Amino acid sequence: MGGDKEKIDKSLDPAVQQMIAKAEKENVATVWDRYEAMTPQCGFGDTGLCCRHCLQGPCRIDPFGEGPKTGICGATADIMVARGLDRAIAAGTAAHSGHARHLAHTMLKMAKGEAKDYSIKDPEKLRAVATRMDIPIEDRSDNEIALDLANAALADFHEKETPVMWATTVVTPGRVKVLSDLGLVPKGIDFEVSEIMHRTLYGVDADAVNLLLAGLRCAVADLAGCYMGTDLSDILFGTPSPVVTETNMGTLKADAVNIAVHGHNPVLSEVMVGVANEMDEAAKAAGASGINLVGICCTANEVMMRHGIPACTHSVSQEMAVMTGALDAMVVDYQCIMPALVTVAECMGTSIVTTMDICKITGATHVDFSEEAASEKAKEAIDIAIKNFSRRADKPVDIPAITTPVVTGFSVEAIVGALTNVDAEDPMKPLIDNIKAGNIRGVCLFAGCNNVKVTQDQNFVVMAKKLLKENVLVVATGCGAGALMRHGFMDPANVDDLCGDGLKAVLTAIGEANNLGGPLPPVLHMGSCVDNSRAVALTVAVANYLGVDTDKLPVVASAAEAVSEKAVSIGAYAVAAGLPTHVGVMLPVLGSPLVTEVLTEKVKDLTGGYFIVDLDPESAADTLLAAIDERRAGLGL
Amino acid sequence: MGGDKEKIDKSLDPAVQQMIAKAEKENVATVWDRYEAMTPQCGFGDTGLCCRHCLQGPCRIDPFGEGPKTGICGATADIMVARGLDRAIAAGTAAHSGHARHLAHTMLKMAKGEAKDYSIKDPEKLRAVATRMDIPIEDRSDNEIALDLANAALADFHEKETPVMWATTVVTPGRVKVLSDLGLVPKGIDFEVSEIMHRTLYGVDADAVNLLLAGLRCAVADLAGCYMGTDLSDILFGTPSPVVTETNMGTLKADAVNIAVHGHNPVLSEVMVGVANEMDEAAKAAGASGINLVGICCTANEVMMRHGIPACTHSVSQEMAVMTGALDAMVVDYQCIMPALVTVAECMGTSIVTTMDICKITGATHVDFSEEAASEKAKEAIDIAIKNFSRRADKPVDIPAITTPVVTGFSVEAIVGALTNVDAEDPMKPLIDNIKAGNIRGVCLFAGCNNVKVTQDQNFVVMAKKLLKENVLVVATGCGAGALMRHGFMDPANVDDLCGDGLKAVLTAIGEANNLGGPLPPVLHMGSCVDNSRAVALTVAVANYLGVDTDKLPVVASAAEAVSEKAVSIGAYAVAAGLPTHVGVMLPVLGSPLVTEVLTEKVKDLTGGYFIVDLDPESAADTLLAAIDERRAGLGL
Repeated sequence: MGGDKEKIDKSLDPAVQQMIAKAEKENVATVWDRYEAMTPQCGFGDTGLCCRHCLQGPCRIDPFGEGPKTGICGATADIMVARGLDRAIAAGTAAHSGHARHLAHTMLKMAKGEAKDYSIKDPEKLRAVATRMDIPIEDRSDNEIALDLANAALADFHEKETPVMWATTVVTPGRVKVLSDLGLVPKGIDFEVSEIMHRTLYGVDADAVNLLLAGLRCAVADLAGCYMGTDLSDILFGTPSPVVTETNMGTLKADAVNIAVHGHNPVLSEVMVGVANEMDEAAKAAGASGINLVGICCTANEVMMRHGIPACTHSVSQEMAVMTGALDAMVVDYQCIMPALVTVAECMGTSIVTTMDICKITGATHVDFSEEAASEKAKEAIDIAIKNFSRRADKPVDIPAITTPVVTGFSVEAIVGALTNVDAEDPMKPLIDNIKAGNIRGVCLFAGCNNVKVTQDQNFVVMAKKLLKENVLVVATGCGAGALMRHGFMDPANVDDLCGDGLKAVLTAIGEANNLGGPLPPVLHMGSCVDNSRAVALTVAVANYLGVDTDKLPVVASAAEAVSEKAVSIGAYAVAAGLPTHVGVMLPVLGSPLVTEVLTEKVKDLTGGYFIVDLDPESAADTLLAAIDERRAGLGL
Repeated sequence: MGGDKEKIDKSLDPAVQQMIAKAEKENVATVWDRYEAMTPQCGFGDTGLCCRHCLQGPCRIDPFGEGPKTGICGATADIMVARGLDRAIAAGTAAHSGHARHLAHTMLKMAKGEAKDYSIKDPEKLRAVATRMDIPIEDRSDNEIALDLANAALADFHEKETPVMWATTVVTPGRVKVLSDLGLVPKGIDFEVSEIMHRTLYGVDADAVNLLLAGLRCAVADLAGCYMGTDLSDILFGTPSPVVTETNMGTLKADAVNIAVHGHNPVLSEVMVGVANEMDEAAKAAGASGINLVGICCTANEVMMRHGIPACTHSVSQEMAVMTGALDAMVVDYQCIMPALVTVAECMGTSIVTTMDICKITGATHVDFSEEAASEKAKEAIDIAIKNFSRRADKPVDIPAITTPVVTGFSVEAIVGALTNVDAEDPMKPLIDNIKAGNIRGVCLFAGCNNVKVTQDQNFVVMAKKLLKENVLVVATGCGAGALMRHGFMDPANVDDLCGDGLKAVLTAIGEANNLGGPLPPVLHMGSCVDNSRAVALTVAVANYLGVDTDKLPVVASAAEAVSEKAVSIGAYAVAAGLPTHVGVMLPVLGSPLVTEVLTEKVKDLTGGYFIVDLDPESAADTLLAAIDERRAGLGL
């Protein structure tokens, strides 16, 4: 196994390769089969030259100049492409902020005593965030502060006297000015989503640059949603600190009740973690060795960062976890959950349990989760898994015997904490000094998904290898982090192999100062998709320390295998924040040379950031290195 | 002219036919040419079986069962179609409510003394709406009440302790219960738009029925946006009452500075009306006979309903107004403004003037409108037109010598006012008595756009003719009203020809009681697209009078030539309100038999309303008549 060329073309991950082989043998269609069946994909859609925004359409413009030059209404390729991109940004923004709003409601209910399964796990962060939001903290209880903070969060969704505070208080003062001057400060998160939907309607905005600027403003609202999501999760569930665990499908156990939590919002999975512990005896009574909880996608990142729960697999290979036959239940919340899971699960005897009103799947079992009855509902879901275990107990399972060690939990607070053990007086100094000295040439954030169009993990692995050797400090979130962790990039034992000498020295020095008995891992795991906010926070901390704006720093980002519209909105806010931002798959913008030029070049004159679209990971890494060097030169380094 | 088969196939309107001939002669491409060039249109998009909600796509499912049965993620045809429909509803909702929010801001600025060009024109309606919204009115100034009302309007965009008040206070008590039981009461207008964007993201909602219910809830938020738009416009600009005017391109004047206001929001056009009067002398100084203001699309409806400003043309023929060569400027706000106008305008020497930040058009002149400087900005726009007149003064123009009389202005208040002159004690009684007696067999609302796929106006004309003969009281809004007015349906002189005896008697009796010297017009013009709220208000008044819910009434609706996503959301709220709702063009849902069945049948068991998709106006009219008769039977009539 693992040597079959076709399997390797689908995934670099040997565990996934094994399960692809099993799926083939058992005639179970997977995402790779569905992709193959879908090719050749529609070239109009691929290039953004398809519009269905009214009932006179659908319209399409041939990217090679054959046929109509505009849609029926007269919309040019530029307008079509910009409108489509804007709607993707709006969807991504709606999703991240929907997740954050869910947490705000949870905090509100907790503070009102209506959600007894939740509490303030990090009162220090509560007070820090409240202070940032100008909420008084002196002589006030956690609950009082939490109530105000939750209401402040909910207020950020709509127009009020102030702009979106989770945007303006989290970037540098210089960035606030840049965004203000460009009209890119969002008024309200939902407001911006709704305005995008209005201006992309038939017969509204027909100026591509105006549309793109609106998209960037919406993306800044997306940053706010992400940042809010991280802040509220940390307060409710604890701010992550380093923890040792492992990843990949070998973390499933044949004799245990295996439950995967999948999706994004820890509001459910956190409760699952607690309840699973309590229900271990019930699992044993059913003949299992216990309950084995694993994670998939960003829910995996959330519970891994905070509890060291192993990550089973990520993104494009989510079906492969089911293919093992060892999963008794997959309990999902929302986002990135393939509807196809239900079909694979039926073949393999796994229960797919949906839990959120906004995310049902035809054919799945629905448990109507609510914060008020959180542990009860979590029990209900786990009960389904235990019952399922009893049914499958004697059937053979195929668990790839592959696991990889992971050191995770690198919140900004954890990083600063580790640096404090190097320089207690001035914790940022060692980091900055090493950047200045070139031991850290720059910083690269890997984020986003695995895309079926790319050999799973390949872009991440190739790029990270190259950048680490060149002493770039690599941080990762989302399924980008998932990819890197499954290939050993979060195992400190691999620092020697993977990192250039300068970076190696830094990671080792910090590790030693923290008595870790070795270096930090080559890549620092910062969390889930919403936790791209942590990368922004780190960047802003460095910028403020140096007294420059974020667009001057040798910091870059890459969504090397992006899928979700969330990745588009994240990419757009990285650009708004001033970062060179790589995307390793085609964005549906090539149909408009104007839009492509604005996104990859002209926007640089506005925000300092810009998109780099490059499908070749080698040359993409080179381009990011060049961008880092350009910034270093700008800083006189 | 007018006899050419091909022109007739494009439009029933002889003025439009003349301009199509001119465009052909002068080689100017029009919407019909662009449509022809676009055919055959993409069958995947046409049936809703195309998905571009992530970067693994685009995906498509063959409606005839060839090829893949799902998208790459496993999304079935049902999911794909439901998601697409939901996003259309979200866009429509965002647009109507964006318009309403704009008015709320205008009212707020006015109340604060920041927008001196605006005032309360209908204090009675201000107090009536405030009372409905539980805002105190006793011993308070107009401004005080307006301030509270504007804030209440803005509050309806987001979650708060109460649901969307512009939804729950405007329907019958029974309907509130139906909507509550089904979970269809919106929490906030923007909230619902944003939640739709979240749940239609890759990997979120994958249950078609769940998606459709969410779409219906968003559509109820759309009703709120529309209703708010009408309420605030009436308060700020006056509630319409009957006024005599005329329509079609013959209202342009060769020797005048011709200015068309086009778009939707009266916040600009109302000021244009006032300023145009003041600037008549300036136009005369430039050699013109004066300023001749005309309207296009819903802006036309707004200024026609309140001031009797003639409507030049509507919807699909908007370019034809420019083709006359007589338009000096077309001043647009937002929605339904074809980007192609700029190209035609360039050929014809017309200035396209955009005025709203969210609606710029590449190649147009932008005047940055604000409520604070409204009249100044209106002057700026009119100045452009006057200057343009000087340039074109000697060039020949082609103004089709076609005008049609129109009696307009039938707000619900105006209708009740007219009925009061029949029965001062109990104004609704004559209407109800005539419905009971069968003189009025039922009520049909015609709404929506002209679609290039339908011979312009044909569906409206054929259906209205049939229904009027069958004694159905016909009311109309939007470009549906535009179509009917251009074909004489709003001319009282045509009652004899068009109406059945029962209806004729009613229209004549009301006309006589109001000393009109004749009947009311065959079709009552209720206003613009947002003014579909007026049709809802009338329906609710009848329902409350009879003590039944709206789904029991012999009231139906038709968007016979729909284009905009706004028409989709309006149709969906008509269904949520319990009305049989005809759409005369294909909705992109046929790719899912399940979605099609839910929308056209199963939803009837939930809300009482349902969609009728029928491209043949004759049989559509028959179906609506049958629906009316079914409802009459249900009421024992």
